[in-house]
Amino acid sequence: MSPHAETVQANGRHYAKPRAPVVVVCVDGCEPDYITQAIQAGVAPFFERMLANGSSLIADCVVPSFTNPNNVSIVTGVPPSVHGICGNYFYDVEADREVMMNDPQFLRAPTLLAAFGEAGAMVAAVTAKDKLRTLLGHGLKGICFSAEKADKATLAECGIDKVLELVGMPVPSVYSAELSEFVFAAGVRLLEERRPDLMYLSTTDYVQHKCAPGTAEANAFYAMMDGYLAKLDALGAVVGLTADHGMSPKTDAAGNPCVLYLQQELDSRFGAGATRVILPITDPYVVHHGALGSFATIYVEQPAREQVARALAALPGVEMVVTREQAVERFELAPDRIGDLVVIGDHLTVLGTSGAKHDLSGLTVPLRSHGGISEQKVPLLFNRRLQGVAPHRRLRNFDVFDLALNHAVAAST
Amino acid sequence: MSPHAETVQANGRHYAKPRAPVVVVCVDGCEPDYITQAIQAGVAPFFERMLANGSSLIADCVVPSFTNPNNVSIVTGVPPSVHGICGNYFYDVEADREVMMNDPQFLRAPTLLAAFGEAGAMVAAVTAKDKLRTLLGHGLKGICFSAEKADKATLAECGIDKVLELVGMPVPSVYSAELSEFVFAAGVRLLEERRPDLMYLSTTDYVQHKCAPGTAEANAFYAMMDGYLAKLDALGAVVGLTADHGMSPKTDAAGNPCVLYLQQELDSRFGAGATRVILPITDPYVVHHGALGSFATIYVEQPAREQVARALAALPGVEMVVTREQAVERFELAPDRIGDLVVIGDHLTVLGTSGAKHDLSGLTVPLRSHGGISEQKVPLLFNRRLQGVAPHRRLRNFDVFDLALNHAVAAST
Repeated sequence: MSPHAETVQANGRHYAKPRAPVVVVCVDGCEPDYITQAIQAGVAPFFERMLANGSSLIADCVVPSFTNPNNVSIVTGVPPSVHGICGNYFYDVEADREVMMNDPQFLRAPTLLAAFGEAGAMVAAVTAKDKLRTLLGHGLKGICFSAEKADKATLAECGIDKVLELVGMPVPSVYSAELSEFVFAAGVRLLEERRPDLMYLSTTDYVQHKCAPGTAEANAFYAMMDGYLAKLDALGAVVGLTADHGMSPKTDAAGNPCVLYLQQELDSRFGAGATRVILPITDPYVVHHGALGSFATIYVEQPAREQVARALAALPGVEMVVTREQAVERFELAPDRIGDLVVIGDHLTVLGTSGAKHDLSGLTVPLRSHGGISEQKVPLLFNRRLQGVAPHRRLRNFDVFDLALNHAVAAST
Repeated sequence: MSPHAETVQANGRHYAKPRAPVVVVCVDGCEPDYITQAIQAGVAPFFERMLANGSSLIADCVVPSFTNPNNVSIVTGVPPSVHGICGNYFYDVEADREVMMNDPQFLRAPTLLAAFGEAGAMVAAVTAKDKLRTLLGHGLKGICFSAEKADKATLAECGIDKVLELVGMPVPSVYSAELSEFVFAAGVRLLEERRPDLMYLSTTDYVQHKCAPGTAEANAFYAMMDGYLAKLDALGAVVGLTADHGMSPKTDAAGNPCVLYLQQELDSRFGAGATRVILPITDPYVVHHGALGSFATIYVEQPAREQVARALAALPGVEMVVTREQAVERFELAPDRIGDLVVIGDHLTVLGTSGAKHDLSGLTVPLRSHGGISEQKVPLLFNRRLQGVAPHRRLRNFDVFDLALNHAVAAST
């Protein structure tokens, strides 16, 4: 954290101070095939050029493959076992209440963005939804605002005001492709006007929850992105792009959602109150996925635990059931922020509590969602070649700042 | 096998004799989203109606999620542990040679098609490629031909001749969408002209290896299929549709294939000759996938086995490494037809032997392939409602004849 050193340290990792501006983009719900198909359709010429001349890798995101745990992992450079954010919700056993983790008080590690700000770098972060802003901007001396509340940004709270004037766009709907476009547009304008040393742009997966890779709407979204990335590149930035998680169809062939209602199943076998199913995808914005993801955690007292685990594992649609200890080891989670069991749905199946608790009326197109292991593979892309990355190193999406700052080869121009 | 009973028995399962013609379709490489997206695009009106009025289920195919093991499972009603076909290739340890299993001599169970023929039913089977014809038609008193060699079909060998006249199409290229269209066209003409009691139609996955669900070419293929299925339905057939396996993109975001060359990796660590990697996807038709799938089996003598397993499990791209015994139990395989270890690639990764042995020059578009657990979920569809299927029964694609014959509700007309 020394402001005079050549490197900045955060959570035990060292990051070189950037010589050119570094922009890291987290494209929410970016299954790699979205980019592949947009390139195939000929609507993403910059992506095509960037990946031919730069670097195209695949990385593992954090499971649960949800937005908050992954965005926080990316800006801290460490997994949830260190930073504590394992989902949007956990059950506080002692207080006997379900707790939402959008608040920075649940964050157990500083962000590298804050560390760079502390070290004298100019740092900016732009998120699509405001729910992420407070987590990502925690302790940050710099610019941090959301597209959703861009009109409310003040110098005191966000390090910037008059954002709509800067960007030249109105505040978009929270359920729209434009909410993400605003993030990119803001990133380009910030780079032009303020030239921050380090910038983090994080979009929302409204389009990916609705549209399959290669469809017209998905291609239009990636074509939009392609244009802004080309501008960031032309402005001389080192661009790193990854995703918080992938995205899979979660339906049968007819397009009906494949939902396994776990609380219902468990109540009918073990009695009401014997188990508590928590869905860490739940947050205030659930219209586009009905709070249905492929990851659930179960609180269940002994001695029933093993019996419950066996019953869950036998249900069609369940890919894996592990104990808290196994989940902590395999997925690097914080033991006090997950239940006694972790259940993961297969690539077509989402996990619910009970039918009455999920409003599916917002699902106007076949459900696509995430949360499981099947959405763990994400793109890890750079507009530069990389050097010094060990062969067979398991790459994570939260290595993106390390790779952009420590391994990207300077542009040859 | 009694010709006078109301049911026909094959491999321990009982099948009711059909009152209306039953047509079972195996759509090669049919990830469920192909159908969902075609319906969404408005090009599959019959699928939409059929799934609204009939049944739409998801089933597990056999792993390795390859064509031969699954087609054979479907026509025998049992897994590879019974019928013996675990892939296209195995290594005969005693003879020290790699053996192709396209020949019926490797089949350890009779087909239900043959049993129905024996019981006096009129049975027809049409495959896209000729490689499947001899396996599926083994012991069959009835009609059995391939689109690939439709012009060569003789009464003596195929139970039918003059197929091109019947179908009214020329013999298509073996690498084409038309090869599958020929299968459907033949099915409709056979139903019109001969009205078999039981018919099996099996297509090829040329289109699915090239095109993502929802893209124009994929939608055109499913629109073609939709028209023929509507005709089969209009002719009064009970239609059951499933797939041999799903299909996943096997590339990074740039579209470069994600290949893990296992023999290369193992030779560099354990020395040449210490291990033998067999890829059971290999067959004479590899242009569209370069013999790259997500399943491999390894022959390795003790005492190195455990060390090899650990080395494989640590490679990025590997989803699972199991011993022969574990694979036999979990995937219901025949122990003498697989190696000492089974390796499964993740949903974006295919497994090769060594770079020099795979010709990727035929990959004109980003690789899509199968073979792993990520391609195990397939559609299981009927143009009838089903009754008497136990809740939470794990459905398999090789239950399709059971469900069509024993559980489909008669049409109300």
